[in-house]
This record gives sequence, C-alpha cells and structure tokens, in this order.
Amino acid sequence: MLTTVSSPSKTVTIGDDQPFCIIGERINPTGRKAFQEQLRAGDLSQVLIDVDEQIAGGAHILDVNMGVPLADEPALMAQAITMIQEKTDLPICIDSSVIEALEAGLSVYKGKALVNSITCEADRYEAVLPLIKEHGAAVICLTNGEEGIPVLWEERFEFCKRLVDIVHGKYEIPMEDIVIDALAMPIGAEPQSAYHFFKTIEAIKGEFDLNTTCGASNTSFGMPSRHTLNGTFLAMAAGAGMTSAIMDARSEECVKAVRGSDVMLGKDEYGITWIGNYRPPAKV
Amino acid sequence: MLTTVSSPSKTVTIGDDQPFCIIGERINPTGRKAFQEQLRAGDLSQVLIDVDEQIAGGAHILDVNMGVPLADEPALMAQAITMIQEKTDLPICIDSSVIEALEAGLSVYKGKALVNSITCEADRYEAVLPLIKEHGAAVICLTNGEEGIPVLWEERFEFCKRLVDIVHGKYEIPMEDIVIDALAMPIGAEPQSAYHFFKTIEAIKGEFDLNTTCGASNTSFGMPSRHTLNGTFLAMAAGAGMTSAIMDARSEECVKAVRGSDVMLGKDEYGITWIGNYRPPAKV
Repeated sequence: MLTTVSSPSKTVTIGDDQPFCIIGERINPTGRKAFQEQLRAGDLSQVLIDVDEQIAGGAHILDVNMGVPLADEPALMAQAITMIQEKTDLPICIDSSVIEALEAGLSVYKGKALVNSITCEADRYEAVLPLIKEHGAAVICLTNGEEGIPVLWEERFEFCKRLVDIVHGKYEIPMEDIVIDALAMPIGAEPQSAYHFFKTIEAIKGEFDLNTTCGASNTSFGMPSRHTLNGTFLAMAAGAGMTSAIMDARSEECVKAVRGSDVMLGKDEYGITWIGNYRPPAKV
Repeated sequence: MLTTVSSPSKTVTIGDDQPFCIIGERINPTGRKAFQEQLRAGDLSQVLIDVDEQIAGGAHILDVNMGVPLADEPALMAQAITMIQEKTDLPICIDSSVIEALEAGLSVYKGKALVNSITCEADRYEAVLPLIKEHGAAVICLTNGEEGIPVLWEERFEFCKRLVDIVHGKYEIPMEDIVIDALAMPIGAEPQSAYHFFKTIEAIKGEFDLNTTCGASNTSFGMPSRHTLNGTFLAMAAGAGMTSAIMDARSEECVKAVRGSDVMLGKDEYGITWIGNYRPPAKV
C-alpha cells in the first residue's frame, strides 16, 4: 500500500518499497518553557530553527504541533504552517489534540496533509474524519479507544480493525490514506510492550497491508542511552514491517538505524543512499 | 530450544528466553600478518590480549581460530585452548576448517564445546560429526552444500532440513546441540540477502525451534559505517528470532544493538541489565 503526502511541489510516498519515512517530530513546544513563552508572545522564530534541524537530520515529513497552554492554538497552527510552507517544500503532518487547530491547519495547508491523529474514541473521530474527507488528507489512527491502551497485540489489532471499519467503511476514506500508529510504549514499564508492538505491526501488514507508524522515542522513556535503544527499536520495527515513524531527525543514531534498515530490507539497493550519506570524505 | 555450552565452572545457555549470546570472534589470525608471524614462531601472547578484549566487550563464548598458513594448526589450537582455559571460565567455540585442528582442540577442551562448523558437504560432516558425538559437543551447521550458497530463503531452509536429517537423524546428535548458521552475506553484493537471511531465521524458528547464529560482520562488507550497519542487522535478526552471533565484542555499537534487542524482546526485564551497563556514573 502506498500513502502519499504532498506539498505544492513535492510528494512523499510511504510504503513497503519506499525508504523508511522519517516524520520529524521536534516542531513541538511540549515540555519547552522558553519556546512556549515565545509562542504565547507571537514569536515563531524557534519554529524555523526546529524545521531547519529536522530537514538537516533527514526528515521526509515535518510533524507540526503548536500545543501551548493559554495560547490561541488554531491561530498559531495556521501561522506556523503558512510560514513553514514558505520556507520548505517538505509535506507536513498537522498534529494537535485540538480539533479547531487541525481545522485551521488544514484550511491554510497547500497540498495533501497528514493529520495526527484519531483513535477509536467517537468524540474525536466524528469531529476529525469529516475534515480529513473534506480536505482529502491522510490520517494517523491510534490503536486505542475509551478503554485505554491494551498491552496484547491481539487487542491492539482489534482496534485496528475497528479503525478500518470506521475510517474506510463508514467515512469512505481510501485505505491508502490510513496510517496506523500501533502505539510504542515505555519498555521500562512493561517488558513485553515492544514484542506486542512488533506483533501488531506484523498483523496489520499481513491482514490489511496498511502503512504504520509510531512515536518512537516513547519506547526508551526513563532508560539510559535512549538514542541507541530507540534506534534498536526502530530497526526491529522496520524489520517487522513498520514503514514510518514520528521521530527526532536530530538523533543520528535513530536516523542511521532506519536508513540501515532500508539497506537490510533491500530498499536501498547496493547501499547507494547509505554510501552517499556515510562515505568518509576523500583524502586530498 | 536451549543449547548449553560449558567450561568446567561455567555454563552458557543459548535460547529464546536467554540474553542474545555473543560469540566473540576476534581470536583469529586471519588477515593479521603480525599475529600470524607470532603464532608461527610459537608466541601466543596476542591470543590472551584478544581474549581479554572480547571478555571486556561482553562476549559470552569465545570463538577460537588458529588458522595460519604453514603452521601446525592442530598443535596451536590445543595450546591456545589450554592457555585460554587457564585464564577464563568462558566456554569456547572451536573454529577451524582443518579437521585435525578441531580434533586436537576437542581433545584438550575441558567442558562441552561448541564446534564451528559443518555444512551439507559430506566430506566434512562425515569427519566432524563422529568427533562431535564422541565429545558430546554442540555444532554450528551452515546452510549450504556442494552447490554453493543459495540466495533464496526457501533454498537455505532446505539445507537446514537436510542438516537436521544428517546431524540428528543419522548421527543421533540431540536437536539442542545443533546451532544453524543461516549465512549472513554482504548486502552490498546482493540487496535481498539480508531479507532472505531474516526469512530463513523465521522459518528455522517456526519449524524446528533451533538456535541460530551467523558471522554478523560479513553483512556490511565494503560499506561505510560498518559497525552501525552490523548493529542494525543484528537487531533485526534478533527480532526475527536469531539467538546468537559470532561477532566482534569490541564493537560497542554491535554489543549495544544485541543488548538493546534483549530489552525490546522482554529478555532483559525492566532493562535491569541495560541500566546496569549504561547508566551514567552518579555525580558526587
């Protein structure tokens, strides 16, 4: 299955025969006090710094989240997206827990956006899916519902089936515009969580051939040497069939892990891209 | 399936619920001119340096190869093994293409050795398997034969079935003493080689539940940033079910990749071992 996301001049394709898609996740003020204060004061300069760093690190799509308490998030989202699209042709993943911010983002976005996200919770998908349909966007769907996040892969896969029924069956959004987030959870809290994550990915690929993603850095929460653990997780998830991740492209270990997985899965034939990126400079 | 390998005072177990088994591969003069000259002159001091480095890096078993052109390899093997067993309690993998060197190694080895290796080639297994049986050793079996090394996983898996028929069926060596080397090949020469390797591992695990291994560093031959690629390969192979590898324990990236895979597969519960190894030093 091939999912396309685009800006006016660039289309990124997520899929089995494509390079692993890096959705750069840093353009987000969560947990960053100074950035939050800037945004509340209407100063969006940090956004462009974050965008530059994600592009330099190798992001294919930019996840943009403007969630700041006590700020006008829809207005910030519209402003940020307009500004980013003036600067780069990378497609954007519009990320918000606030419906109005998604709506504001979609209304100014030029191209076909990816929207982050819905779950099996009706309140949310009933508001978001009509927007997805109206704008012809693609949507990230999380495998959980009102009941919380299950540990077992069989239960996560049940949520995936429900999501397909809702998004494709009821709202008639094309299957290729569904990207399932199988929910990477902290391995330090539940030792079997990554195992069940990999099994969920395999099941989704086997049954629906849908594209999959996750917020990769959750996995290593609370552990030392996080980038290495995240990279290991990403390589293993790619091996299980995951085709994209919402990840910080500034982490060289994570970026190398997914690029290495491309080499190992035959997506980077003869390592042409790998060699281009990592060949030592010639001695003059 | 649990494979045990032992010295007089230590048993290492290879298996699905065990930490990924690192078989340290550096105790080997191949391609090392100075080391070869020392060995020809009867100076084995480098052996102990290599042993120390493999142990420091985290090896669980030591692969010992004394293949030096124009030297008495059986005598060197016997000497090296005796010397190493006086120094460390780590079990040994006796590695040689020369039957007499395997025989000499087995005759002095104290404990249950792992022997590297046989293939489906009759000349070799007819000479080696009686030694394995006589000494009660475990044996690494390569999935190739006179016909060469196949690319497709289905053909490699056929070799695996033949190996089981020969080693277990004909020579009555216990299944748990068979470790299959599914043959990691340079990804730079054949873009699908790692994919077929992973599929072979999955098939062996699914059908026989045998332990598996490979010479991991072959994968990245000719590529830049080899340790990273090897680590990515190892993590993905562990995800597919591989339980050990013959690898250089001096490579921190490779060791972290397999230890990270233990965390991800729930073999290192709550990351206790990971945290013990990689927690930053406390500030005083």
